[in-house]
Amino acid sequence: MSSIQISTGGGIATVTLNRGKVNALNESMVEEIRSCFEELRNDQAVRAIILTGQGKFFAFGFDIPEFLSYSKDAFIRYLTKFTALYTYVFLLPKPIIAALNGHTIAGGCMLALACDYRIMVSEKAKISLNEIAFGSSVFAGCVEMLKFCAGSRNAQKVLYSGAMFSAEEAKQLGLIDLTASQDMLDDEARKVAEDFAQKDSAAFRSIKTLLRKPVAEEMIPRERNSVHEFADIWYSEKTWKNLQEIRIW
Amino acid sequence: MSSIQISTGGGIATVTLNRGKVNALNESMVEEIRSCFEELRNDQAVRAIILTGQGKFFAFGFDIPEFLSYSKDAFIRYLTKFTALYTYVFLLPKPIIAALNGHTIAGGCMLALACDYRIMVSEKAKISLNEIAFGSSVFAGCVEMLKFCAGSRNAQKVLYSGAMFSAEEAKQLGLIDLTASQDMLDDEARKVAEDFAQKDSAAFRSIKTLLRKPVAEEMIPRERNSVHEFADIWYSEKTWKNLQEIRIW
Amino acid sequence: MSSIQISTGGGIATVTLNRGKVNALNESMVEEIRSCFEELRNDQAVRAIILTGQGKFFAFGFDIPEFLSYSKDAFIRYLTKFTALYTYVFLLPKPIIAALNGHTIAGGCMLALACDYRIMVSEKAKISLNEIAFGSSVFAGCVEMLKFCAGSRNAQKVLYSGAMFSAEEAKQLGLIDLTASQDMLDDEARKVAEDFAQKDSAAFRSIKTLLRKPVAEEMIPRERNSVHEFADIWYSEKTWKNLQEIRIW
Repeated sequence: MSSIQISTGGGIATVTLNRGKVNALNESMVEEIRSCFEELRNDQAVRAIILTGQGKFFAFGFDIPEFLSYSKDAFIRYLTKFTALYTYVFLLPKPIIAALNGHTIAGGCMLALACDYRIMVSEKAKISLNEIAFGSSVFAGCVEMLKFCAGSRNAQKVLYSGAMFSAEEAKQLGLIDLTASQDMLDDEARKVAEDFAQKDSAAFRSIKTLLRKPVAEEMIPRERNSVHEFADIWYSEKTWKNLQEIRIW
Repeated sequence: MSSIQISTGGGIATVTLNRGKVNALNESMVEEIRSCFEELRNDQAVRAIILTGQGKFFAFGFDIPEFLSYSKDAFIRYLTKFTALYTYVFLLPKPIIAALNGHTIAGGCMLALACDYRIMVSEKAKISLNEIAFGSSVFAGCVEMLKFCAGSRNAQKVLYSGAMFSAEEAKQLGLIDLTASQDMLDDEARKVAEDFAQKDSAAFRSIKTLLRKPVAEEMIPRERNSVHEFADIWYSEKTWKNLQEIRIW
Repeated sequence: MSSIQISTGGGIATVTLNRGKVNALNESMVEEIRSCFEELRNDQAVRAIILTGQGKFFAFGFDIPEFLSYSKDAFIRYLTKFTALYTYVFLLPKPIIAALNGHTIAGGCMLALACDYRIMVSEKAKISLNEIAFGSSVFAGCVEMLKFCAGSRNAQKVLYSGAMFSAEEAKQLGLIDLTASQDMLDDEARKVAEDFAQKDSAAFRSIKTLLRKPVAEEMIPRERNSVHEFADIWYSEKTWKNLQEIRIW
């Protein structure tokens, strides 16, 4: 039973997060997404990728109840895989469009930030890096991707507040590029993906790398320490208590 | 006789610059501010800090008349302490809110830029890095902090022009985050500080460091040369003449 | 027969690109511009420089028909000179104002980005880094200068789309600083140049270097590989075919 669905056609692959009610990320799901993106990278027929979710969430973030049963070492192993995943997506040499179908929270937001373009439903959905609200930190790589998308000032605003932003606010901040009604999201994402798919692939790959490799060079060497600090705070008495009170609705 | 006042209550410390009519920075004042921030950093009861000034100025910048009596070596010693101060504030692992009660000029603006949040009175007060107007340079660390707050393009605009900006203009540029009427400044600053004070302190410290350490890594290795170049220009014939004509009003 | 014209007066030098109908850049023109800027740098009487073009183009970019006769090695030699030119302009310690009199495309846009200030005619002219549209990459240094001017997010938008932007759109994106009617362009550029010329030259030089040297330190070590990758893509079958179909109008 897979936690993602993949469909392809016309040079465009659509990857749909599909795990429970809120697409909460766990270790096997992260592994599946990674394998999927590795295959799509190597598939010559795929010229652009849409990443979306089923239901009211793009992704809730980590599957906290499941991780509460993890040892710290196992959790660090997971975090290492997760941060490697968003770095892989960030640098993947094909265009990736995030079609944010619903709430895009914490780890879900990090995955979205790694993409080349973000379209978000304009209705009730919120986007947030809300870690500070429950006493968690984030990751060095996530911060650099956020600075890349939104600039340093907005990155600080987003992370210090932990606020939930509407699609319109998110667009102002640089978290997303376009809003679309629920009805139009798939069509709009398809249109953007087709536009990207028509670009020369060698030129796109080279330009994407020129834009992003200097950012990745800031991300990668800082990530290991960052993951350990994240875990230290996660397992601290106060944060652990907060985590036990979080309900995935 | 101290050049700063400190009051604490409800987890929030308020540091008020209080030296002469314009809170001009001199060496002993910089030392006092540094000691004060070191104490507040270590004081477990302090969860957020407000930095403000008395009178019509937040700070005029350096006490130029006093520094005109300094030898170049002594001035370099001061500059080294001053640049170390703003770097210390920039990285201090507690939230610092600048409540800009009046004109915020040159070195005063640099101190403000090091804080986590800036509220400025919306009336006649101006904010400026006006060094170029009197033939002075700035510092490498100040430039990186300015880029962090306002982006590279606005940083260049601010520094090349040396212009005096109103609070509203400063907000557009990213120099400040919020404007408040004179009457409301203290209340607004308190509200922001209380909001920060409620955040989990370990998460805040970690996130602040993730945001700012990569910036500090650009600031610190460049600062020594920058201080020497600043002093060379300061003691050049033309700039020295300009400095003698500046009146602290 | 020179491809640029130089006039000086009142401390301001004006360099006018003047080659054919579209000021397309070739190797000898790049060498001439470089020599010219070296002289203006050393000329004590010159306090500010205006870079503009004659006709309906500021510059079309590279003279593609001419380069189609180049060997790959010779083209790499040209690219090395061209990227060194914009880096030289980017760091030149005098104010340089680009007066964009018409279309500012590809390599022409890169030259403009290296300047300290950009004014563009508000009528039909377009500005673009349209390389992706004909299957070409850009250069590492160009990407860093673009990030410096427009921020990472807009840099990505400009490069991924390859779109042609009006002056007004370009101002929103940070590609230019001011728009002017065709009639007023020279006067406006002159006014900006005179304002820069009045700044203390040692302070300006120091501040410009503080702003830009950290950027150049990202540009320079990446440029050699970038030039080779650019040439590999340029000489690829698909892109080579596109290039043969481009007509300089």
